[in-house]
Amino acid sequence: MGRHLMKTADAGSLSATDAGSDVTLAGWIGRRRDHGGVIFVDLRDASGVVQVVLNPEEEPASEEVLHGLRLEYCVQVVGTVRPRPEGTVNPDLPTGMVEVSASSLIVLSESDVLPFPLDGRTDIDEAKRLEYRYLDMRRSRVAENLRARSMAIRAMRNVMDEQGFLEVETPTLIASTPEGARDMLVPSRLRQGHFYALPQSPQLFKQLLMIGGVERYYQVAKCYRDEDFRSDRQIEFTQLDFEGAFWGQEEVLQTIELVARRVVKDLRDVELNEPIVRMTHAEAMRNYGTDKPDIRFDMRIADLSEVFAATEFKAFSGVLGDSGSVMGINGGPLGLARSGLDGLVSQAQDVGAKGLVWMVVEEEGSIRSPVAKFLSEAELREIVSVLDASVGDTLLIVADRTKTVLEVLGHLRLVVGKPDSHDELAFAFVVDFPVFDVADDGSLSPAHHPFTAPADIDTLINTPETAISKAYDLVLNGTELGSGSVRIHNSDMQAKVFEVMGISSEDAEGRFGWFLEALRYGTPPHAGFAIGIDRMVSILRGEPNIREIIPFPKTQSGADPLTGSPSRVESLQLGELGILVSPDVVASWDSEPDQEAASES
Amino acid sequence: MGRHLMKTADAGSLSATDAGSDVTLAGWIGRRRDHGGVIFVDLRDASGVVQVVLNPEEEPASEEVLHGLRLEYCVQVVGTVRPRPEGTVNPDLPTGMVEVSASSLIVLSESDVLPFPLDGRTDIDEAKRLEYRYLDMRRSRVAENLRARSMAIRAMRNVMDEQGFLEVETPTLIASTPEGARDMLVPSRLRQGHFYALPQSPQLFKQLLMIGGVERYYQVAKCYRDEDFRSDRQIEFTQLDFEGAFWGQEEVLQTIELVARRVVKDLRDVELNEPIVRMTHAEAMRNYGTDKPDIRFDMRIADLSEVFAATEFKAFSGVLGDSGSVMGINGGPLGLARSGLDGLVSQAQDVGAKGLVWMVVEEEGSIRSPVAKFLSEAELREIVSVLDASVGDTLLIVADRTKTVLEVLGHLRLVVGKPDSHDELAFAFVVDFPVFDVADDGSLSPAHHPFTAPADIDTLINTPETAISKAYDLVLNGTELGSGSVRIHNSDMQAKVFEVMGISSEDAEGRFGWFLEALRYGTPPHAGFAIGIDRMVSILRGEPNIREIIPFPKTQSGADPLTGSPSRVESLQLGELGILVSPDVVASWDSEPDQEAASES
Repeated sequence: MGRHLMKTADAGSLSATDAGSDVTLAGWIGRRRDHGGVIFVDLRDASGVVQVVLNPEEEPASEEVLHGLRLEYCVQVVGTVRPRPEGTVNPDLPTGMVEVSASSLIVLSESDVLPFPLDGRTDIDEAKRLEYRYLDMRRSRVAENLRARSMAIRAMRNVMDEQGFLEVETPTLIASTPEGARDMLVPSRLRQGHFYALPQSPQLFKQLLMIGGVERYYQVAKCYRDEDFRSDRQIEFTQLDFEGAFWGQEEVLQTIELVARRVVKDLRDVELNEPIVRMTHAEAMRNYGTDKPDIRFDMRIADLSEVFAATEFKAFSGVLGDSGSVMGINGGPLGLARSGLDGLVSQAQDVGAKGLVWMVVEEEGSIRSPVAKFLSEAELREIVSVLDASVGDTLLIVADRTKTVLEVLGHLRLVVGKPDSHDELAFAFVVDFPVFDVADDGSLSPAHHPFTAPADIDTLINTPETAISKAYDLVLNGTELGSGSVRIHNSDMQAKVFEVMGISSEDAEGRFGWFLEALRYGTPPHAGFAIGIDRMVSILRGEPNIREIIPFPKTQSGADPLTGSPSRVESLQLGELGILVSPDVVASWDSEPDQEAASES
Repeated sequence: MGRHLMKTADAGSLSATDAGSDVTLAGWIGRRRDHGGVIFVDLRDASGVVQVVLNPEEEPASEEVLHGLRLEYCVQVVGTVRPRPEGTVNPDLPTGMVEVSASSLIVLSESDVLPFPLDGRTDIDEAKRLEYRYLDMRRSRVAENLRARSMAIRAMRNVMDEQGFLEVETPTLIASTPEGARDMLVPSRLRQGHFYALPQSPQLFKQLLMIGGVERYYQVAKCYRDEDFRSDRQIEFTQLDFEGAFWGQEEVLQTIELVARRVVKDLRDVELNEPIVRMTHAEAMRNYGTDKPDIRFDMRIADLSEVFAATEFKAFSGVLGDSGSVMGINGGPLGLARSGLDGLVSQAQDVGAKGLVWMVVEEEGSIRSPVAKFLSEAELREIVSVLDASVGDTLLIVADRTKTVLEVLGHLRLVVGKPDSHDELAFAFVVDFPVFDVADDGSLSPAHHPFTAPADIDTLINTPETAISKAYDLVLNGTELGSGSVRIHNSDMQAKVFEVMGISSEDAEGRFGWFLEALRYGTPPHAGFAIGIDRMVSILRGEPNIREIIPFPKTQSGADPLTGSPSRVESLQLGELGILVSPDVVASWDSEPDQEAASES
């Protein structure tokens, strides 16, 4: 860039080598100290902080201005960089070797008293932070998160570019999609009574791009899902979406691996040298009791059913006789008192267990447990052996229906084993997902969208409850970061899959006949994936919630405390769109007046 | 990437140096010729085309498969690259030195008969092309446009990254904006009867980012505008949006210049060596009769009022006596017959002129014109001199209110002077826009959004009709590519501007009180811009319409012929959102059944 009229240097970039330079700085006043008539202020801009010395004798500004300077005033300073006097160097500050002696200070913009301090030492109510997000992002935590999000997206794009992907933008005002009921709708003005939907994902459009011969597509795509709010969901969210033609699962996983390595390198300066662990869905369930295993720690679930095959202990033999399982984990040296152990029992019951057996391995191989007296010496020895237990270890055992056992132990494994921080990163691929989720009553519901290719169509037709699909997930530290699949590329296969999923051919034709037609023009085999960007960055940043990563997030109820959206809209405006607010909704307003609407009318 | 199971080489990348290599190709059959029992097919993939030789004697596939091969079948070919036999080299094809002799061919996917040929030699109805966009994009025209769009965006991002901009994503489910009436609305499910709006631009959010200390923001932003359709508008469109703190106009224009240079270099391989021409809005109007001048050609409007100050010609003297103007352009050697000249008169009248005087400069300095006899020798000489006319030139003169004269001549200038192609590129900055557009009745309407800084607040208050704002446009070949401004960074100034614009303080508070509050916390001076990406790429690609550049565009009425959006939605689904379709709209459906809805129910 050429001349900067208002600013010639970044505050945070000044160092001892700049000593003697004249600079024009601009930024915000972060702190102010008066010492013997001289005023020291921390001047902060996007690059960092530098100390500015305002000596009233040098008249950088009128006395009135100097004494009126308050926190977060936006100022311009002309001055000279100089080494700090001996004894005043601040080793904690990157610019701590120098200070800027000001010859001129101009207030560009004053600041009202802040609604909360920006010093990072105070806990602030999240609603307040979101209402004043523009002040919140002057704090280093949010500022660094925004930079990290930008870096992560750039890293992803760089990999995609290097791999020859074409960035293609898909439309966001589309027709209702398969998952229609949760679509967000947009009334059309030109065609009253008709609606666009906002995309839940670019799924069908990226498949159309494959049909269109694009071969390698990617997009940082905004998606919308109007669902109940959970702590890690937003109604609008952003994913790295990509797809490849003439591709199978292997090419997708290798591409994800490149993306993961680059993002981790750029955000954490860590090289992921090992290939990402791969396991089948069945292995994940069997070893970790979940399809999104946290493998930062091992603590696998061990099947103890063999150990108790001939047990006298009724609680176990009954379950085993009923085709259930007895399994356990070695929680390691937990050192819990009786109350702590009882707490684990309660937690197990909360997630569906009838009970939990705990055992503590004591000195000389004896076992302390409420059920020890019901078990044989041989059984106790076998437990210790199968769970590879040492003195001091706490063992947790559940006997129940196999599905319940795995769920409960999967949960307890996280309770006793999961690290608090995200310093360590454990990625995993989970592959070979089942086509259907099987409910307790045996009913089947599709686990993925109906464009996912089955591993074998005959199995899908004959024994759908055991059928495997070519679907795979990426997991990081026990959180699902994204999912993808090999897609169906043949309209006959697609029709069969719809049939097995209980979608009638009329229904399929009505909902996506245009897509079924597209499949009939030489569709290449193709496969793809989508990575949730905010979730990935939040874990890499050690943030508990994706709201910390999103520049302007919404609350869990979908509201924006800053701008007041969503809000009521005048009926005139709705009339132009050919819609009305339902009379019963309007009636509910009358009994409960709306503040926002009042201020908007 | 590691192993490619389905493809080891790109068809379009093969050259003589690959002769002897074994390759696995995958793509589409673009052409098929049978010669003496041997089949030659053009195999096309995203990279290009190569000739594949299928010799039935080498049994690359069963006779049935080979004879069944049709256009756009998706196939995989294993074979050996070899030089083409002498005399069969195709110099028009990048791979024309070689062919691939196939040892195996597998049909990955068959194709129905195409709805239109993909050879690029046939004009196809646009509605049909949009309905089958996925086939349309197999044609080189659309495929190349998609690649160009991707390259343009990458070029823009590279400049932004190099200049230290942070990419920040702003929300798309927001509160209604200042231009509210044209907002697209999204009903909230969790808060029935309340609505989000889709952004017309990220304007207020990018200003909040400046307040938040981001300093350099950019985003490739999707924006929405629910307005009447013109040929170069879409209801969703994409812009390069950026903003800088501690910035004035100069920094913005320099940044735009970097972007323009890079995009032109990457898309056209042309270096823009000269700085982009700058002119004020007043100069643009005076010289070219428009605020988006096409300066690929000069043909400036010349003021002839002085020439006719004392004319006897009533048509001119009357206008001049009435504070009007007489101006003209030199259209150059148009060589038009009388009918062509009459056509120009009609065109002038179509755009508001009462009449048009044409003159043709003939041999020996005499002038042929219907009005020549009313003008003095001196006046005719002066016209030739002021318009710098040579023998054969056609001069076009209009006398009317000054505004009309400029509009008409600005239009005629394009009619007679504008080049057909976009081979030449002429960028221009137009700066110093007026704050208000003045209507014929003298009424004022704001020319820009109310956050635009005025050049001088006192002028704005005292003589608003002559006030200048710090707003500027980028123009390319007579098309506006984008606009921006220095923003107001002070809440008192903002309040005054609202007042002059006729926005009451209650109204301002109700509509963007949250933003006025934000301005009070040390807002830095800031300025920014937005460039319409599709418009820029369409000009650089020489495409007449941005629909050629957008991967999945909508028609002028906002419909998508591919997916059928917008469409009717079941009332149950609307009920969950707390809205209804207006009864009168439903009534209009009864008299006019909807095909789409019928197929969706």
